[in-house]
Amino acid sequence: MFVNRMPRYEILSADAMATLDRGWRRIVSEIGVEFDSPRALELFRRAGMKVEDKTVFFDPEFVLEQVAKAPREFDVQARNPANTVHIGGDHMVFGAVYGSPFVREGDVRRDATLDDFHRFCKLSQVFSELDSAGGVVCEPNDVPLDSRHLDMTYALQTLTDKIYMGNVVSGPNAADTIAMTSILFGGRENIERTPAVIALINCNSPLRWDERMLDAQFEYSAANQPVVITPFLLMGAMSPVTIPAALAQQIAEALTGIALSQLIRPGCPVIFGSFLSNIDMRTGSPCFGTPESAIGLLATGQIARHFGLPWRSGGGLTSSQVADAQAGYEALMTMLPTFLAGANWVMHAAGWLESGLVSGYEKFIVDIEILRMLQEEFTPLEIDEASLAFDAHAEVGHGGHFLGAAHTMERFRTCFYRPLLSSSDNYERWMRNGGKDAAARAGEIYRAKLAEYEQPPLDDAIREELADYVARRRAELGD
Amino acid sequence: MFVNRMPRYEILSADAMATLDRGWRRIVSEIGVEFDSPRALELFRRAGMKVEDKTVFFDPEFVLEQVAKAPREFDVQARNPANTVHIGGDHMVFGAVYGSPFVREGDVRRDATLDDFHRFCKLSQVFSELDSAGGVVCEPNDVPLDSRHLDMTYALQTLTDKIYMGNVVSGPNAADTIAMTSILFGGRENIERTPAVIALINCNSPLRWDERMLDAQFEYSAANQPVVITPFLLMGAMSPVTIPAALAQQIAEALTGIALSQLIRPGCPVIFGSFLSNIDMRTGSPCFGTPESAIGLLATGQIARHFGLPWRSGGGLTSSQVADAQAGYEALMTMLPTFLAGANWVMHAAGWLESGLVSGYEKFIVDIEILRMLQEEFTPLEIDEASLAFDAHAEVGHGGHFLGAAHTMERFRTCFYRPLLSSSDNYERWMRNGGKDAAARAGEIYRAKLAEYEQPPLDDAIREELADYVARRRAELGD
Repeated sequence: MFVNRMPRYEILSADAMATLDRGWRRIVSEIGVEFDSPRALELFRRAGMKVEDKTVFFDPEFVLEQVAKAPREFDVQARNPANTVHIGGDHMVFGAVYGSPFVREGDVRRDATLDDFHRFCKLSQVFSELDSAGGVVCEPNDVPLDSRHLDMTYALQTLTDKIYMGNVVSGPNAADTIAMTSILFGGRENIERTPAVIALINCNSPLRWDERMLDAQFEYSAANQPVVITPFLLMGAMSPVTIPAALAQQIAEALTGIALSQLIRPGCPVIFGSFLSNIDMRTGSPCFGTPESAIGLLATGQIARHFGLPWRSGGGLTSSQVADAQAGYEALMTMLPTFLAGANWVMHAAGWLESGLVSGYEKFIVDIEILRMLQEEFTPLEIDEASLAFDAHAEVGHGGHFLGAAHTMERFRTCFYRPLLSSSDNYERWMRNGGKDAAARAGEIYRAKLAEYEQPPLDDAIREELADYVARRRAELGD
Repeated sequence: MFVNRMPRYEILSADAMATLDRGWRRIVSEIGVEFDSPRALELFRRAGMKVEDKTVFFDPEFVLEQVAKAPREFDVQARNPANTVHIGGDHMVFGAVYGSPFVREGDVRRDATLDDFHRFCKLSQVFSELDSAGGVVCEPNDVPLDSRHLDMTYALQTLTDKIYMGNVVSGPNAADTIAMTSILFGGRENIERTPAVIALINCNSPLRWDERMLDAQFEYSAANQPVVITPFLLMGAMSPVTIPAALAQQIAEALTGIALSQLIRPGCPVIFGSFLSNIDMRTGSPCFGTPESAIGLLATGQIARHFGLPWRSGGGLTSSQVADAQAGYEALMTMLPTFLAGANWVMHAAGWLESGLVSGYEKFIVDIEILRMLQEEFTPLEIDEASLAFDAHAEVGHGGHFLGAAHTMERFRTCFYRPLLSSSDNYERWMRNGGKDAAARAGEIYRAKLAEYEQPPLDDAIREELADYVARRRAELGD
């Protein structure tokens, strides 16, 4: 897995941080946060917080005491131990796009299906730049809604041997995910010891946590599985239009959600979530890859470290409808700040298109290329006498070239980044090869990679037990 | 003009800098640098350096003494005083693509013409994100080679009222540029007082300065016009394949070229140039927007500041043949590090395509969008009580939305970046509008901008004097 040992790019002064600190404290204590869950309200009431109707008014010091119980770093195990990841510190873990109802292949945009879900799982398995397929890599619209979470979890468990995300649509769905994860890892005690499934808990921002998400959070936190507590902030709609206000709100929502997890099970793993961009004020459409979202990312990394928490960002985000120039620069406009800010858990790292409504096959490959480049770029340069290559300079002298120098001959196979998608072909060669743009080449690459895919081995008994669980629960759910 | 008050992202440790320092000192003193100019060799000989044939063996301390005479910052005046720029410190100045023999419009790639040159000048004038059209915004292949520099200079002077770059093909061409600049600014004494034209002096790397470039450098430095002393390093061809070796070579070449300028005219303005990328070792093709070039940019900014010099980078570089996803992410892979490293003079900031062989109309617009986004992103965030917008939170409360909040209503027109090119239209609207990708929309934008162009006013007597100069010199040159 990738460890980012480059410096962090920090943009908040101590004064700015103190101002934000005053901001979230005032929000949680004076406006409070709504929790649509009797169990949550009861936990907060018993801990001494003032609760009125569904609103909890927090003592900020109590919030910080709870937050301090969360681990700064932890492992999430994969069924292939080589794919187990570490969340926190300088480690960066990458998962594919999450939650899109549609897919795009070339010029065709259509409803996503379970077959698409399988294909995106396979692509995520094939590319070592990804640590996970994520969770809902697209929405399998052709299978029944009530049991769809079983199909998705089974696919993630059997088509990949990497970590995966768990269903959060309801408490029972979360319980199913945990049960299936317990089967895969040989019992619940094994996953309680080392977590094995990550759950994304989104806030109904501003300042409200909804019942079904909270029910899922209760299941995952009780089982010691990490929850990504994520304020969902499109500035102008779910938060004010000034970035500092959004940041203060983000802290208020994330820390109170995290406090709940620590009341459910002290010491359970959590991730400070961030999903922060803005809408177009003329149309109301969400915008991604904006300057505002980049600034938000840089600030959020610094804020999460201030509270001693691992944190989550999105990478590869774009509003573009197709894998064009806009998709390229917007994806990098989020992914490069993600590296600069050192995000620990990077969702939507491959395949996100059209503001998250579409999982794009070509875009998936564009994003893999971006990831590969940045993983190379954010590997510290070794500068020592050997790397100065004085002998090469002495050999070549003035006005010559280094193509045949001994220093070059020793290193030419590995000295530079080798692209997956990008072309530096001269015009004549590029035309001979069909004059294909990056999206067309990306199409060829994902089709070839799908053809290469091999299913990772899994013990037959475990596979059968998982299939039985799915069949039994599907029947119980009436599908 | 844009002032980058964000922090610099610095990646070299003190140890690394000391190693690079040993590197360039050893190169200039033990291998030496070749200067194919009797005048240059005579200047170095008289200054006490050892000269053998055309090679100068430098005392590194002497080089540093000369470099210390160069100004850390200076102005370059434009004929419209509002467009005068400051080079150095936190200031960033942006010029369009330079030197391409071809152009691309949509699917058509063809030889560039003087009409293309004029159109790129007009686009550079129209967009306030650019401080300059640069110099050879494309090569006007349809006019005679010997007098082409006169056509280009006249176009830059009359179609734009921004700063421009001077011809460097030969000493006489440089003298023509200076003569025409003297006409435009009311006499040579006026441009000697405040420089008015920037000249790009490229090294024939490794470690050789060619005669014609040096002749041009003599003209510009003697006239107190800034020269951008630029090692031209494609690692694997013009420098070794390790980045530290390329950086040491870059310092050796740049500082010795700068030392020459300071011998020609002590205190004349110079810019530490950088053009640093790599070739594909399988094909020999140059690659741009690579991780190596990004690392080179970050390191070069730190190095130039170490020597107290303003510095030049390229931005918006790509190997892509068309304005596709690759062009988008590679352009940002150079432009974002350019901002992080705080380059002072950014060449190729708009229109670069196909490794610099092509000036692309659509790519020009893609780059303008990237520049606009980064100029917004690298403007420090103000974080104070007002920007926390507590009243907006109090007004909206839990689970509501901020679309109609008073705080939003006061700011909705200006609160977020408004794109020029990027689309966040929902799918239905995007399809209704023709389902155009970013390149197609960029085509519409540059055509509309050319239609909007108005020639900036210029005194008739000056225009006539310039035209007379061009006519007379064209006749003398036999064209």
